[in-house]
Amino acid sequence: MREKRPLILVGNDDSYSFNGIKMLIKVAREFGDVVVSAPLVHQSGKGGGITITEPLRATLKVDEPGYKVWVVNGTPADCCKLALDQLLDGRVPDLVVAGINHGLNVGVALLNSGTIGYTMEGCVHGIESVAFSYGNYSYDADMAQCEPVVRDVIARVLRTGLPKGVCLNVNMPYGTGPFKGYKVTTTCMGRWVHEFEHRVDPNGHDYYWMTGDYAPDYPADESTDVYNLKQGYVTVTPCHVDQTDREAMSQISDLLR
Amino acid sequence: MREKRPLILVGNDDSYSFNGIKMLIKVAREFGDVVVSAPLVHQSGKGGGITITEPLRATLKVDEPGYKVWVVNGTPADCCKLALDQLLDGRVPDLVVAGINHGLNVGVALLNSGTIGYTMEGCVHGIESVAFSYGNYSYDADMAQCEPVVRDVIARVLRTGLPKGVCLNVNMPYGTGPFKGYKVTTTCMGRWVHEFEHRVDPNGHDYYWMTGDYAPDYPADESTDVYNLKQGYVTVTPCHVDQTDREAMSQISDLLR
Repeated sequence: MREKRPLILVGNDDSYSFNGIKMLIKVAREFGDVVVSAPLVHQSGKGGGITITEPLRATLKVDEPGYKVWVVNGTPADCCKLALDQLLDGRVPDLVVAGINHGLNVGVALLNSGTIGYTMEGCVHGIESVAFSYGNYSYDADMAQCEPVVRDVIARVLRTGLPKGVCLNVNMPYGTGPFKGYKVTTTCMGRWVHEFEHRVDPNGHDYYWMTGDYAPDYPADESTDVYNLKQGYVTVTPCHVDQTDREAMSQISDLLR
Repeated sequence: MREKRPLILVGNDDSYSFNGIKMLIKVAREFGDVVVSAPLVHQSGKGGGITITEPLRATLKVDEPGYKVWVVNGTPADCCKLALDQLLDGRVPDLVVAGINHGLNVGVALLNSGTIGYTMEGCVHGIESVAFSYGNYSYDADMAQCEPVVRDVIARVLRTGLPKGVCLNVNMPYGTGPFKGYKVTTTCMGRWVHEFEHRVDPNGHDYYWMTGDYAPDYPADESTDVYNLKQGYVTVTPCHVDQTDREAMSQISDLLR
């Protein structure tokens, strides 16, 4: 039975102290009770990673009527799972939102995104789930431009709901002026090139920093997130938690025959 | 231009010293030159997680003609990425194989699987990629039962190839007797329940171990990996790196109108 006032679970991967999650919390609190469950330290790039070999701990940083903040020593997916199983006192959220990420989550980088990892966990549990990301990668990015988009998307999702097994990946461009509106997009397939920078430490040993450039397979494909963000649109990509490629099944049956 | 003898990149998430990867290496070497790039320590549950805030190091443990073993202080996805970008001297593998995982990779747990994370990275780079997992979770599991399956699947994939953007998730059941053959399956949607065990440490502080039971949404659905493994079949699920749900796009357009 739904409570009168919605319950919204908020998380991210940049950690609980970043501007992005502060903006997300501010807007979410306009709509309902908010419980934050977010990482203690920066967890970018953790994808859907979870913590199996170490125990998790959760610290209650804020405990006000209708507003709690838990900080967890784990990954984004850990934070979402621990909240749903332990920190919400048996209440089921009406909405899970993650972000606002300081940096876009587009293309095949979704596979490595902690923001998406958080969102997917909410979706797995049958809860409407939305990831928000902004094209400003600065640790102290000003999130003001995102506020009306976050408010509008949350209102629409709470009102209409999402298809079963589908979450939303919302990206907002930076440096392209006022947003031109929404585009429902596909994830731009491609690959990373020059992924590592090779260095030698003062002791003469090799080490590698992950870096790289995204090389889209179809840079001019007008359906993709990458393309539309460059045009100044807010992109909304529906993502499914089920990665089964049903179209490929008969071809794989042939391969195994 | 393809070399006469195929190049096969081998990895896993359990770390380079486990029986599962030893069996995979043994079989892969029958087909071609093998380069192993695998984690130094256990990396189960890391999903598609990557390492951004620390540098990576790679140690060459074996350097024989046609056979190299690199050990990397990172996640499974790191190991695959670092190999493709730095450790293969510019050669592009004909095949990426990950596993044999000590434990199944089925259902929504794929989102958290390091074995799948490795395989997806190969697929992103346009290389035929296959994950192998076995239902024996023991650290010293005997992998003999898997050997003919691994050999057969590698032979078929090298001969026929896979559809673009699609990798294979192969699971082999344990404790159901001789394998009954292949089934091409879907990933069984569901969710984890009782995900954490709450404990109190000797100092009186709470902590949580991840655990849990998988509750399939459709336990009797004969198309799923979970169902067919219970019947004793080797399941082969084609998985796509692109998580866009194209069917949901018009519904999301309506939601944003």
